[in-house]
Amino acid sequence: MQRILDEAVEYARNFLHQGKPASYIPELAKADPSLLGAAIVETNGSTYFSGDFEKSFTIQSISKPIALILSLKDNSENFVFSRVGMEPTGDAFNSIIKLETEESSKPLNPMINAGAIAIDSFIKGKTPDEKFNRLLKFFRQLSHNPDLTYDHDVYRSEDETGFRNRALANFIEDAGILLGDVEEVLELYFKQCSIKVCCKDIAIIAAVLASNGLSPFTNNRICERHYTRLVKTFMVTCGMYDASGEFAVKVGLPAKSGVAGGIMATVPDRMGIGVYSPNLDVKGNSIAGMKVLEYLSTRLDLSIF
Amino acid sequence: MQRILDEAVEYARNFLHQGKPASYIPELAKADPSLLGAAIVETNGSTYFSGDFEKSFTIQSISKPIALILSLKDNSENFVFSRVGMEPTGDAFNSIIKLETEESSKPLNPMINAGAIAIDSFIKGKTPDEKFNRLLKFFRQLSHNPDLTYDHDVYRSEDETGFRNRALANFIEDAGILLGDVEEVLELYFKQCSIKVCCKDIAIIAAVLASNGLSPFTNNRICERHYTRLVKTFMVTCGMYDASGEFAVKVGLPAKSGVAGGIMATVPDRMGIGVYSPNLDVKGNSIAGMKVLEYLSTRLDLSIF
Amino acid sequence: MQRILDEAVEYARNFLHQGKPASYIPELAKADPSLLGAAIVETNGSTYFSGDFEKSFTIQSISKPIALILSLKDNSENFVFSRVGMEPTGDAFNSIIKLETEESSKPLNPMINAGAIAIDSFIKGKTPDEKFNRLLKFFRQLSHNPDLTYDHDVYRSEDETGFRNRALANFIEDAGILLGDVEEVLELYFKQCSIKVCCKDIAIIAAVLASNGLSPFTNNRICERHYTRLVKTFMVTCGMYDASGEFAVKVGLPAKSGVAGGIMATVPDRMGIGVYSPNLDVKGNSIAGMKVLEYLSTRLDLSIF
Amino acid sequence: MQRILDEAVEYARNFLHQGKPASYIPELAKADPSLLGAAIVETNGSTYFSGDFEKSFTIQSISKPIALILSLKDNSENFVFSRVGMEPTGDAFNSIIKLETEESSKPLNPMINAGAIAIDSFIKGKTPDEKFNRLLKFFRQLSHNPDLTYDHDVYRSEDETGFRNRALANFIEDAGILLGDVEEVLELYFKQCSIKVCCKDIAIIAAVLASNGLSPFTNNRICERHYTRLVKTFMVTCGMYDASGEFAVKVGLPAKSGVAGGIMATVPDRMGIGVYSPNLDVKGNSIAGMKVLEYLSTRLDLSIF
Repeated sequence: MQRILDEAVEYARNFLHQGKPASYIPELAKADPSLLGAAIVETNGSTYFSGDFEKSFTIQSISKPIALILSLKDNSENFVFSRVGMEPTGDAFNSIIKLETEESSKPLNPMINAGAIAIDSFIKGKTPDEKFNRLLKFFRQLSHNPDLTYDHDVYRSEDETGFRNRALANFIEDAGILLGDVEEVLELYFKQCSIKVCCKDIAIIAAVLASNGLSPFTNNRICERHYTRLVKTFMVTCGMYDASGEFAVKVGLPAKSGVAGGIMATVPDRMGIGVYSPNLDVKGNSIAGMKVLEYLSTRLDLSIF
Repeated sequence: MQRILDEAVEYARNFLHQGKPASYIPELAKADPSLLGAAIVETNGSTYFSGDFEKSFTIQSISKPIALILSLKDNSENFVFSRVGMEPTGDAFNSIIKLETEESSKPLNPMINAGAIAIDSFIKGKTPDEKFNRLLKFFRQLSHNPDLTYDHDVYRSEDETGFRNRALANFIEDAGILLGDVEEVLELYFKQCSIKVCCKDIAIIAAVLASNGLSPFTNNRICERHYTRLVKTFMVTCGMYDASGEFAVKVGLPAKSGVAGGIMATVPDRMGIGVYSPNLDVKGNSIAGMKVLEYLSTRLDLSIF
Repeated sequence: MQRILDEAVEYARNFLHQGKPASYIPELAKADPSLLGAAIVETNGSTYFSGDFEKSFTIQSISKPIALILSLKDNSENFVFSRVGMEPTGDAFNSIIKLETEESSKPLNPMINAGAIAIDSFIKGKTPDEKFNRLLKFFRQLSHNPDLTYDHDVYRSEDETGFRNRALANFIEDAGILLGDVEEVLELYFKQCSIKVCCKDIAIIAAVLASNGLSPFTNNRICERHYTRLVKTFMVTCGMYDASGEFAVKVGLPAKSGVAGGIMATVPDRMGIGVYSPNLDVKGNSIAGMKVLEYLSTRLDLSIF
Repeated sequence: MQRILDEAVEYARNFLHQGKPASYIPELAKADPSLLGAAIVETNGSTYFSGDFEKSFTIQSISKPIALILSLKDNSENFVFSRVGMEPTGDAFNSIIKLETEESSKPLNPMINAGAIAIDSFIKGKTPDEKFNRLLKFFRQLSHNPDLTYDHDVYRSEDETGFRNRALANFIEDAGILLGDVEEVLELYFKQCSIKVCCKDIAIIAAVLASNGLSPFTNNRICERHYTRLVKTFMVTCGMYDASGEFAVKVGLPAKSGVAGGIMATVPDRMGIGVYSPNLDVKGNSIAGMKVLEYLSTRLDLSIF
């Protein structure tokens, strides 16, 4: 397995020069495009690492399935999906069109920004700080990493330049979807996106999803089986932005990518995978990261289809 | 003329029970639906009033063509129309769709909310207060009413519940259309919409437009001929929200309506008309107000077509 | 007047090298881009011609307001506008989007292709031939030209390559808007678009509109005053495709353009104008043709605003 | 297994009174809503049947993944996916919007009507008859049923009333996506949709997909492994119209439904399932059919997630 992982990383290195880092905030734009790391955590607890697997980056949209689980723990499934849909969309992650043309203004699913912001507004807590601390604690549990925290500079930058997300949040507040104060929800959302992780962290989280909610190291249950299945489904149908369909065909794994260059993929009952490389394609997915996953999927016959 | 105006108001009274006041803020919802007023100011200075012509209401969207003139005075025409288009739209006044589907994210015209917010962001002034004071001064000049001011309660209410406008403003900020700080621009926009006027005030403003920028009372030039023609054109193609086409067919006058129930109409070279009645149809136009205008247009053969 | 018209044509000659002819069918693409003609017919019967004013071209979309009048003569106004709307649209002339997003699938207005095809389906006649002959007869009456006929080659070419129009027609048939057989209606529509006219012909038709339905030569009534006002209104709000707003600002006249390079403009109570030059801008309007109209509007103060 | 299948059918019987049959053509509207059948074919060749499993119905959209495989056999994968996308869509199956707003006018995926019509136009054959015969032969191979044929009445009815599909086909012809003559492609498409099958037939086809292209009875290879994986992926992301996301969450199987009431589902490496019941929900999926699949998925833990 270690050899195959190293091969995958070597293969992906050929694509490091393609694409470019996200540029909407300076903190992401200045990422080193030569970075490439990968981690595998099997459901039996075996771990394999390669390249820059300990290099930290902000989790960004990879946080969406995890926040969804906490939101489902805090509310009934019916409540959550009465306000956010379950359907994939052919539109871009930050699109606002469907909010207006769909009768109910319901965001189509929890993986697009509008849906993820709504999901965050359902998380319980008396104060904004309490909400974020509950969320952070849950991320730490899943990653088995008690040191996870968020990047203040990235958070501030997201907050200062997050006009599109502010537009989405105000739109769904107007439509009666969002709960609570718009700016407080955005604070939570921007902090969540700014949590710093490395490949190892997200591979461990993915391994928990792969084992249907059990810790790969202690076998203790960390979250409900049903919720892990739910989020894996969303990861297949809409985890890779509007390239989800193509990724399903080529790799065939539940996966979620983030604009900092990370991708978290999960192989049901077998393993969690974390990859990182900052250069993105036009849809916002890490190019070298996808190449690592393509290689592994083909070599190890991982596709669920 | 006085008799015809009275007849028009009598005729329109038959429609007072239809529709309902705007309900998005409580201040508008509690308007008395039996109110109906009308005023005519001829370009030679003759004035005719009928019904509740001195009853004040907030100007709302009727302010858009006026703010556009000030914005054109403050900037080059090229600059303004490089950022806001000139085309009518079949979408609702608060629609966000075209901002996303049009290549440039340019609001289609200065009469829809997104366009009007952009237009406000171009108005000059060192501080938000200075900008609003310049705007208010211009409204006072045009209306020949030095006492015009804004309604604090309506302003606060607009500000507190203006999620859709906040969504639009953040969207065009993200697209690089809006100049300056989003919240400061919204403050200006909400205050402008909250300026209190009566039928007489808007009839006088309309008379200035009718006489191509001259005061109907003193014959002094108040604004440039070219700008008055520009805004009259926009009033025809997009002054009555997405009922502008039907209004052009039925009444045939440059007009601008506001959700508080006012409509300002102008008959080139002849007169300005102001009407007010709070009950609106589904497109957001005053029902009895439009009936007054229909009556006058037919009776006096006012259509420009 | 003759001198001013000649000046307008001279001025417009400077823009002959810009743009290019319509290319969707070979017959249009091979038009000579150096052609430029203009005609003015005053409501008192005086006529002025300049340049290639007798050169014939296919009428294309300029036929839409005329077919609308015949459709209104054949049906009640209520019927027609229950199936086709009155609102301008910010979308392109051949757009299909609004048909799907608007609740009723009603084409937004009679000047876009979907609306014009629906309008044609309401024209009376026992057979397709009878319908077209009635339409052609009406065109001949309005133009005072008994020799008007259609171009077989252009018709055949429109028919063979009219996939987008076929898509629109089938869409509105599915929505229950179109009356009768899709292919028969398309035959009528394509023949109508292929009628050959020259600047003189459309200037005469425009003069009939300018004089509210009377012949400029005999003063006989050719069509109802009300219908001429209706179509002039549509010509202002949506006659120049999605450049109608800008044209209203710059020229300020009811006008209808066609992709063969013709534009028919009307100055209420004063004159009809016909211009022709094949090179189009990206919106589909004749560039030199619009320059002639801009010159005349400024020089003679023709704007209705 | 037989007992579990019978239980599933019994359970689903409780939902027979909900929904109604497709009504867009009379032939479908007159289906008996009390019908309910199910079939399971394991990859080892074992078969289990229950209810009206031999009752025939038209295959409708269930034919789309099968026609896609033939189209992929006839052309390079690159060619096919350069003209039809791989992405799920939140729009309805017969939506035309994305064709206009997406830059390339590429249908988003091969499971929506526009995409399926394009896919059919790529199938090889000298004449329309030869194309359909090749397609029918392939359906017979996959279903191991040499008697499969199409329903003439349904075909004629589809053809006579298929205005929306005609609109889609003409639109993609105009965009240069469709190959060949529009009417010939529609003939092929309508005939394909009219092929008569029973639950047993589609369970066998699904079993071939489950075993990656091998016959469950003879173990002979019928189609390429790669193509079976491709279509299973599309079945997950867009097989159940715009309820695909919810179905993935609740059932978690690659499946394709048709408006006649059939659903074909496949459990990788284990079995093919065919269900049939005519009453549909608003998205166009068989209500009782989905209940059978939900029961089986839960009871036998079939979800791929």
